[in-house]
Amino acid sequence: MSHLADRVKNPDVQKNVWVEFVGLAMENQALNVGQGFPNFPPIQHVMDGLSSIPVENHLNNQYTRGFGHAPFIQALGDFYGPLFDRKLDVHNEILVTVGAYYSLYAATQALINPGDEAIIIEPFFDCYAPMVRYAGGTPKFIPLKPAGKANDANDWKLDMDHLQSLVTDKTKVIFFNNPNNPLGKVFTHEEIQALCDFCIKNDIICLADEVYEHLAYNPQPHLRIGNYPGMYERTITMGSAGKTWSCTGWKIGWSIGPPDLIKAMQIVWQNSIYTCATPLQEACARSFRLEMERPFDGHPKDNPDSYFRTLTEVELKPKREKMAKILESVGMKPIIPNGGYFMIADASPLAKIIPEAELDDSNDPWDYKAVRWMCRQKKIAAIPNSAFYSEGHKKEYENYIRFCFAKDDATLDKFEEMMVAGFKQ
Amino acid sequence: MSHLADRVKNPDVQKNVWVEFVGLAMENQALNVGQGFPNFPPIQHVMDGLSSIPVENHLNNQYTRGFGHAPFIQALGDFYGPLFDRKLDVHNEILVTVGAYYSLYAATQALINPGDEAIIIEPFFDCYAPMVRYAGGTPKFIPLKPAGKANDANDWKLDMDHLQSLVTDKTKVIFFNNPNNPLGKVFTHEEIQALCDFCIKNDIICLADEVYEHLAYNPQPHLRIGNYPGMYERTITMGSAGKTWSCTGWKIGWSIGPPDLIKAMQIVWQNSIYTCATPLQEACARSFRLEMERPFDGHPKDNPDSYFRTLTEVELKPKREKMAKILESVGMKPIIPNGGYFMIADASPLAKIIPEAELDDSNDPWDYKAVRWMCRQKKIAAIPNSAFYSEGHKKEYENYIRFCFAKDDATLDKFEEMMVAGFKQ
Repeated sequence: MSHLADRVKNPDVQKNVWVEFVGLAMENQALNVGQGFPNFPPIQHVMDGLSSIPVENHLNNQYTRGFGHAPFIQALGDFYGPLFDRKLDVHNEILVTVGAYYSLYAATQALINPGDEAIIIEPFFDCYAPMVRYAGGTPKFIPLKPAGKANDANDWKLDMDHLQSLVTDKTKVIFFNNPNNPLGKVFTHEEIQALCDFCIKNDIICLADEVYEHLAYNPQPHLRIGNYPGMYERTITMGSAGKTWSCTGWKIGWSIGPPDLIKAMQIVWQNSIYTCATPLQEACARSFRLEMERPFDGHPKDNPDSYFRTLTEVELKPKREKMAKILESVGMKPIIPNGGYFMIADASPLAKIIPEAELDDSNDPWDYKAVRWMCRQKKIAAIPNSAFYSEGHKKEYENYIRFCFAKDDATLDKFEEMMVAGFKQ
Repeated sequence: MSHLADRVKNPDVQKNVWVEFVGLAMENQALNVGQGFPNFPPIQHVMDGLSSIPVENHLNNQYTRGFGHAPFIQALGDFYGPLFDRKLDVHNEILVTVGAYYSLYAATQALINPGDEAIIIEPFFDCYAPMVRYAGGTPKFIPLKPAGKANDANDWKLDMDHLQSLVTDKTKVIFFNNPNNPLGKVFTHEEIQALCDFCIKNDIICLADEVYEHLAYNPQPHLRIGNYPGMYERTITMGSAGKTWSCTGWKIGWSIGPPDLIKAMQIVWQNSIYTCATPLQEACARSFRLEMERPFDGHPKDNPDSYFRTLTEVELKPKREKMAKILESVGMKPIIPNGGYFMIADASPLAKIIPEAELDDSNDPWDYKAVRWMCRQKKIAAIPNSAFYSEGHKKEYENYIRFCFAKDDATLDKFEEMMVAGFKQ
């Protein structure tokens, strides 16, 4: 590795839970109820859009504006403007990226100097920490702690005194994933207000990863931290076409925020990618337009036919119930999410029927070993929950496994059958 | 900008010729004969592929393997293996990226430490230098120098003694763009062999940007530096679906190289993007397969129906001639490219009919001002050639303007009409 740059030699940026577990699922041809993608079709209008675009106007196959295809940023501006109670300057307050994943990368690159610190609320989407380290920064972690019965994701709370104790003069940003992946917590108004006060008091930028914004289940509404007083100018709000339209493989995301922060991200962008795929952006623009054409009051979700509503309330809610029932039926203790399409479950009751001798002898947390075993032996692919925790906290949360319930009924039925056959006690 | 990271405050990484000149073209609704994209349709099979993929199998809309969609890396392996005289290990020797642009970024991030040096041959695709600086490195520049009549791109030569004099113990990589953009030079066997000797002698990694690999005009063949003895293990070869299939807006590219270098790029990748768009990769896989189904000997290009041949010899060659004729008709002196779809031309004869008073009063080189004037006053959008030179060398090459001739006949006819009307002396 003598020719390589130091930044890629750091072991902390080399690991990636998806590279291992997606690979393992493929190798074992396992039923994938771990990775976060719907295995049912995306909404028809988004597929129809992409199908017609390449041939309808062949220029949709060529380069478009670097920081976002004009019709797409306009659609995003029209959609999000009212939700942020402002008219968005679409050229300077929006950056279209290769998934929200790249928005997270551009934000860390734009904000974090070597030595800077970033606060990450656990459990966290696993890329946050290596992205901070890749930029030369240091992540500081704080776990959400279960309170009350703790079988509802919203029973997990942030200790604001603990949070304040993490702040130093190097603290630059906080990652705020709402709804949270993998837990499924949707933060309440009071919780968000407390975070706003914290950010403003300590002059901290908020990286608001809101990719599951449309997947908050009634009655818990999703509230935008960027729309709280004093927050817009210090918040980068990130969204995802993949999560919005159920097409994760399109890798189209966006960031919305104040011009100074977006400009800095645009600089990262123009030095690494320059422009996103035109046909995919055009298709997303059309889908936003179609949804906006339906009459609504306040939020497009208020129209009963809105995909923003039907995906969650009609499609996913019954799947959430079914997933919980399956996990409970074999003795696991699921935590019911209020948003997103993941469910973590305490799998420790299964430990007594998983042969210790068949677990790998790595030093990894129990959930890593259990998930590997389940994939190899039972052909069921899930994701270890402790992958979403820092090294120091993994052991405390190694009893949980993450499942994804955005799967078609046949998959969930098959999952039930395999779980019952594999684990019925 | 107090919150921003130092890496985005560097003025050298903030500039981007495309952001300015593409924007200017749009603002002025100018005829775009500058930016490098075909305004004729991509090959039909690639558009048909993308049209059918989203609905034919809806899982093509979801995440795929991070480092490259399995059918696509297999197709790339089958296509490029014979061209590199080896069986490629497609999982470890290929990385699919968001355009070759991102391949360049990942390579600089993977290889360049702060303080390292990178050699860049001028004229160069403009992103090389800021990417090196973004990684903390220092670019060292060496221009190709015109020799002989110098109206043929291949008359421009690299001075190997000058090149050797740039080497220090910090020299890590050399960028080798072949065919060269914007000049259109296609390096000969002797020239490439000299570069190989140079890289091996000085232990330098070669970043081979070969996005115009299929656009070398007979009789000058495109030769792969990665296929020269002793070079594969020190070369990252980068290709582009956008240039190969005439669909620049798809932003699909790839890197091929030895496992240690590709692995390092994969680490950059997994921390910034994780996976490329599935439907676009699937469409590219199918198009490679379709072209490989035709019988050929040595290279798929040898089949007379191959798009790799027809695009260049049937579609582009007459356009190259037409572009040269138009430029000559108004007194410019074009340099005939042997590859790619750009043509630079000495525009100094036009200086006498461009009103000095109408040029902007920036300190920019003459070609920047002339191109801005042409866009605003004549509604013709081109690209200043000195954008492809370092600050220190811009003034020497400010007489040239870059044009793109991958435009449909109507555009070229309109261009002729506008040039004659605007510049006839």
